[in-house]
Amino acid sequence: MTKSTDSARLIISDSEHDADMLYASGIFVPDAFIAIEIDAEWHGLFSPLEVDRARKNSRFSHVHLDTPLRTVAENLNRSGLASVAAAFLSEHAITRVEVPGHFPLAYADALKSWGFKVKASEGAFFPSRAIKSEQEIRYLAHAEKLTRQSMQQAETYLAACSIGDDNILRDSQSGKKVKAADVRRAIETFLIGNGAMPAHTIVACGREGADPHNIGSGYIRAHQPIIIDIFPRILATGYWGDMTRTYVKGKATPEIKKIYNTVREGQDIGLSMVKDGVDGPSIHQAITAHFDNRGFPTRMVRGKQTGFFHGTGHGVGLQIHEAPGISPRPGTLKTGQVVTVEPGLYYPGLGGVRIEDMVVVRDHGCDNLTRHKRKLEID
Amino acid sequence: MTKSTDSARLIISDSEHDADMLYASGIFVPDAFIAIEIDAEWHGLFSPLEVDRARKNSRFSHVHLDTPLRTVAENLNRSGLASVAAAFLSEHAITRVEVPGHFPLAYADALKSWGFKVKASEGAFFPSRAIKSEQEIRYLAHAEKLTRQSMQQAETYLAACSIGDDNILRDSQSGKKVKAADVRRAIETFLIGNGAMPAHTIVACGREGADPHNIGSGYIRAHQPIIIDIFPRILATGYWGDMTRTYVKGKATPEIKKIYNTVREGQDIGLSMVKDGVDGPSIHQAITAHFDNRGFPTRMVRGKQTGFFHGTGHGVGLQIHEAPGISPRPGTLKTGQVVTVEPGLYYPGLGGVRIEDMVVVRDHGCDNLTRHKRKLEID
Repeated sequence: MTKSTDSARLIISDSEHDADMLYASGIFVPDAFIAIEIDAEWHGLFSPLEVDRARKNSRFSHVHLDTPLRTVAENLNRSGLASVAAAFLSEHAITRVEVPGHFPLAYADALKSWGFKVKASEGAFFPSRAIKSEQEIRYLAHAEKLTRQSMQQAETYLAACSIGDDNILRDSQSGKKVKAADVRRAIETFLIGNGAMPAHTIVACGREGADPHNIGSGYIRAHQPIIIDIFPRILATGYWGDMTRTYVKGKATPEIKKIYNTVREGQDIGLSMVKDGVDGPSIHQAITAHFDNRGFPTRMVRGKQTGFFHGTGHGVGLQIHEAPGISPRPGTLKTGQVVTVEPGLYYPGLGGVRIEDMVVVRDHGCDNLTRHKRKLEID
Repeated sequence: MTKSTDSARLIISDSEHDADMLYASGIFVPDAFIAIEIDAEWHGLFSPLEVDRARKNSRFSHVHLDTPLRTVAENLNRSGLASVAAAFLSEHAITRVEVPGHFPLAYADALKSWGFKVKASEGAFFPSRAIKSEQEIRYLAHAEKLTRQSMQQAETYLAACSIGDDNILRDSQSGKKVKAADVRRAIETFLIGNGAMPAHTIVACGREGADPHNIGSGYIRAHQPIIIDIFPRILATGYWGDMTRTYVKGKATPEIKKIYNTVREGQDIGLSMVKDGVDGPSIHQAITAHFDNRGFPTRMVRGKQTGFFHGTGHGVGLQIHEAPGISPRPGTLKTGQVVTVEPGLYYPGLGGVRIEDMVVVRDHGCDNLTRHKRKLEID
């Protein structure tokens, strides 16, 4: 083998949680393993338990059984995955490695103690992850389609409910009072049955909706806003969907209607601005300015945040939150990125309204992957 | 404030994926945040979005809004969570921090560049995590109860199936050929509906079962072993259940019956040995010796592993795989640990058999949290 370099890139992690490792390997492995890039070719090192599956399904140029390397490491009185990586690196006369920023410190320290130079990458380890290929966009579109269909399950469930004298919804079949968990079950049962794994689906009614991170646990009441935010991961591909709608079962008050329309207009402003070359802060500020103009400023009231106090959007891919963001922080959108546009308004004691779509940044605009109606009231 | 130390312990991560952070905080937070222990008291630093929820629900002695610290960091031209942690540490005159082994290298490098000494903990960051409190054991027992009930769903589903002329099972309602996904749906729909999140539930029939990490995708056939391994996480507590059963719909061959009985005897040997002070390797070797004696040795056959080639068990808690292991690697069981006992036998071309229970290590034996019958054939 002709060697052109003494440096390599190294990842040690599992690919269930580490999107970089899934991107490098293309295969779900629940326990940590090793991936090494030398001369633009990726090598995967696997235990006997995984090596056959990796040979069949991974996207590595080379798949190796790690057993001989473990023997080398043991003979040097070293243990752990870093020692297996070290054995491989030494075999290839590599002395310097670049690793992701989230590379475990203990592994880095071990490699350094054995004479390797270890450097965390500045910025993203795979900058290409932010720009989606057409194949990745198809995966994301599929994820968003299932997400949209599961939102439809929630709408159908809420439509079938009746309203009790106490304004709490009643299940159309059991007659029982409806809680957030019942709506969540309608959504998540559909997702599970269709190859997607939900994650802390938000169903937050009334006051619960005033905290954007409250996933909701209480009764579902008529005439109050219900935020439903669904973000499942597709099991087969690892890509995520993400969308939010806000509903009122029954009649929305004029105040809630005004908030809802303002958020919808804010989202329209955001969606109309997303395209290659636009700065994230300019989008975020345009929406904030619209909210201000409509009489919904963002400010602290009695120690609580009110108004629009989260970012406008975030990238979606093998992680549910990834680059780029659309927020006050500097950043420019690029063709091929997939981002959410999800303005919201929140008022303690009253509740919240958020509407979220997922879109592909294109040269002259964006493609909306969500394509689901925005309708406040459910009869 | 009287200071007794210039050192602290530091975690920067989210608590959805990092069990140490969940253990320290007692609250699920999807985005990375900061926890710092000074003088045996834990401080949590939160963004405005999370601080109210953290004040209400976390187990930190002190909850702080991170906004003023961000301002301090920005004035020093620093950014990122490590800079916020640094501002807090400096305020408390801390110069040395111990971090978990999985602490991100980039954060460690940043802290070092600002003059802090950063050291990864040797061994577990929270050794106490391996020894469960009675409260934790109740959480794990609850998780295992739901897991057992979801296994019963699978049994009921398989019992209701008919067997086609092609030996593929038929769904009792739709009449369609049954695939692994159909059995998985019966299991996971139950779990989702009861506050648990399944993770890659294994339903591996026939040849698919010969690879312990194959989650299964094909048709479910009569008269062949079906490995079902269910390991959900309880949403409210973060603790996991874990159990495995192997079934044959119809009639098992004498060979499969012999393998099944051998694995069951192996599990009995393991369960009878688990108690305080016993070495993991002695349990693993006793099971392996039994398999050898019954004519089921562990060895490579034509480049494929056959027999019993994984560990006997692993700890379960806030992670699905955690300390201690029961395997050839050195380690002694201690009262209060919760471990699986899951021997298996695997033969390429034929399939696999695995039986797994989850038990609490006690002074003179163990308490089985699974308590589910071991029965091979389903009519």
